[in-house]
Amino acid sequence: MDTNKLPRPDEFRHTMEVQLRFNDIDILGHMNNTRYFSLYDTGKARYFETVHGVEDWRKVEAVIANINCTYVAPIFFGEKISVGTRCLWLGEKSFCLQQILFDDKGQVRSVCETVMVSFDPAAKHSVVLPDHWRDAFTSYETSEIKRR
Amino acid sequence: MDTNKLPRPDEFRHTMEVQLRFNDIDILGHMNNTRYFSLYDTGKARYFETVHGVEDWRKVEAVIANINCTYVAPIFFGEKISVGTRCLWLGEKSFCLQQILFDDKGQVRSVCETVMVSFDPAAKHSVVLPDHWRDAFTSYETSEIKRR
Amino acid sequence: MDTNKLPRPDEFRHTMEVQLRFNDIDILGHMNNTRYFSLYDTGKARYFETVHGVEDWRKVEAVIANINCTYVAPIFFGEKISVGTRCLWLGEKSFCLQQILFDDKGQVRSVCETVMVSFDPAAKHSVVLPDHWRDAFTSYETSEIKRR
Amino acid sequence: MDTNKLPRPDEFRHTMEVQLRFNDIDILGHMNNTRYFSLYDTGKARYFETVHGVEDWRKVEAVIANINCTYVAPIFFGEKISVGTRCLWLGEKSFCLQQILFDDKGQVRSVCETVMVSFDPAAKHSVVLPDHWRDAFTSYETSEIKRR
Repeated sequence: MDTNKLPRPDEFRHTMEVQLRFNDIDILGHMNNTRYFSLYDTGKARYFETVHGVEDWRKVEAVIANINCTYVAPIFFGEKISVGTRCLWLGEKSFCLQQILFDDKGQVRSVCETVMVSFDPAAKHSVVLPDHWRDAFTSYETSEIKRR
Repeated sequence: MDTNKLPRPDEFRHTMEVQLRFNDIDILGHMNNTRYFSLYDTGKARYFETVHGVEDWRKVEAVIANINCTYVAPIFFGEKISVGTRCLWLGEKSFCLQQILFDDKGQVRSVCETVMVSFDPAAKHSVVLPDHWRDAFTSYETSEIKRR
Repeated sequence: MDTNKLPRPDEFRHTMEVQLRFNDIDILGHMNNTRYFSLYDTGKARYFETVHGVEDWRKVEAVIANINCTYVAPIFFGEKISVGTRCLWLGEKSFCLQQILFDDKGQVRSVCETVMVSFDPAAKHSVVLPDHWRDAFTSYETSEIKRR
Repeated sequence: MDTNKLPRPDEFRHTMEVQLRFNDIDILGHMNNTRYFSLYDTGKARYFETVHGVEDWRKVEAVIANINCTYVAPIFFGEKISVGTRCLWLGEKSFCLQQILFDDKGQVRSVCETVMVSFDPAAKHSVVLPDHWRDAFTSYETSEIKRR
């Protein structure tokens, strides 16, 4: 991630404020690196609910294959932080969500990209991404979704 | 805790909405018992900031001696939950915070009481609760604070 | 909890070492109060597996009603800490697990008592504790189990 | 990460067993994606203690710039999992730690690469990696460390 070319908050249709917890902060006085993923995970859950209308998480047929997170600047307890989530690209069997954590001045503190793979739990292997997922992403997003 | 005599949300001057995270939910499908304490801890931090104006957590001279938490009804992802925090009693060297988690209909899901002891980190023993703490609680609270 | 009358490690048949994580430690430099419950929860899970042979956590028909935790002395990263778990008492519909966190010198750092209630998930109310649970506790424990 | 070319456990001098916690497991029944980072973080902390003799975490002058984690296969409660940590490359101001989570049959479940940057907390900018860090890595590691 070239930190001179960070995504901007206004490129994300789906954003939500996230609440920091006292025990997100570690001995170093800032948000522990592991806790960013709880915020990103919560952003993903809300994004899926909005875009796909997920009602039962046990039936979501996609698994995380890779998470790539860049730490731009530290986060402190008491700061007002939001998470933005969007679909960055769609592939045949996989897709990528790009997420940012940003403050109330629009400064991006972290960027995260998560590759998820469409998965058949019974057969236990990856499958072609269902059309209704593909349609849901393209109907929702206003920024361009790349194809892979 | 007699669950027929739960504290009511309107008895708490200090309340704030708390945000559930996707990974607060365990394999049983509801909020894991351990995660309640992250919410209560965050409520305490905000309460102290409001009541005492804490600026540096490393200088807070009180330690937790006991936590007693009653689970009234389970909490699910997607629910709108708030935490209320108040000072229940003041002793010579200790005080008790009572907290509740409640939903947007005012139903109490959990009650927690935390006894904290005034502590001298250098001498490593408990000390008499400073007057400015005592005053801060009594100035802030509108419900009665018991004496012990 | 009278900290002059702490339970001793040798009163617990079921003990296991627990592993501290770097992000258990908060800005104050010791284990955050909320993380004790992750250790106790893990101790409970292993205890149930040993005593009852739990295979599917979704089928365990008992819920936590109350947790009461006393903090005796702080815990630091790098310390060798174990958790002990035992059944303290059995009631008609409920039982209590007592747990301790102790170091490699046998010093008790924390004591926790958890009251659990036997529960029928379909009917959504408490039920009489099944005999096979009662028997499992009494067969396993070597220390006395009180009756309530 | 090409999952056909995963690093092997025997390529890591520093390995340690990690303990799963009951609340690492989410509603889907396997280890939540966010919890992998707590295990990796703990592996890093122990690695630094071994390689550099860290005594006070507040004085470690390196910050995390990027974490890239590949999920190869899910992890379940009760499995015996270890983390391996090694220095993969050294740059002028940064270095990369590669880590794996693997089971007791040597199967790799996840691979994670963390780029850290040498940092001057007073000046608040990155600095050339001190020689004592460079030396500590090269003295400890038996596998080749690349240069960047």
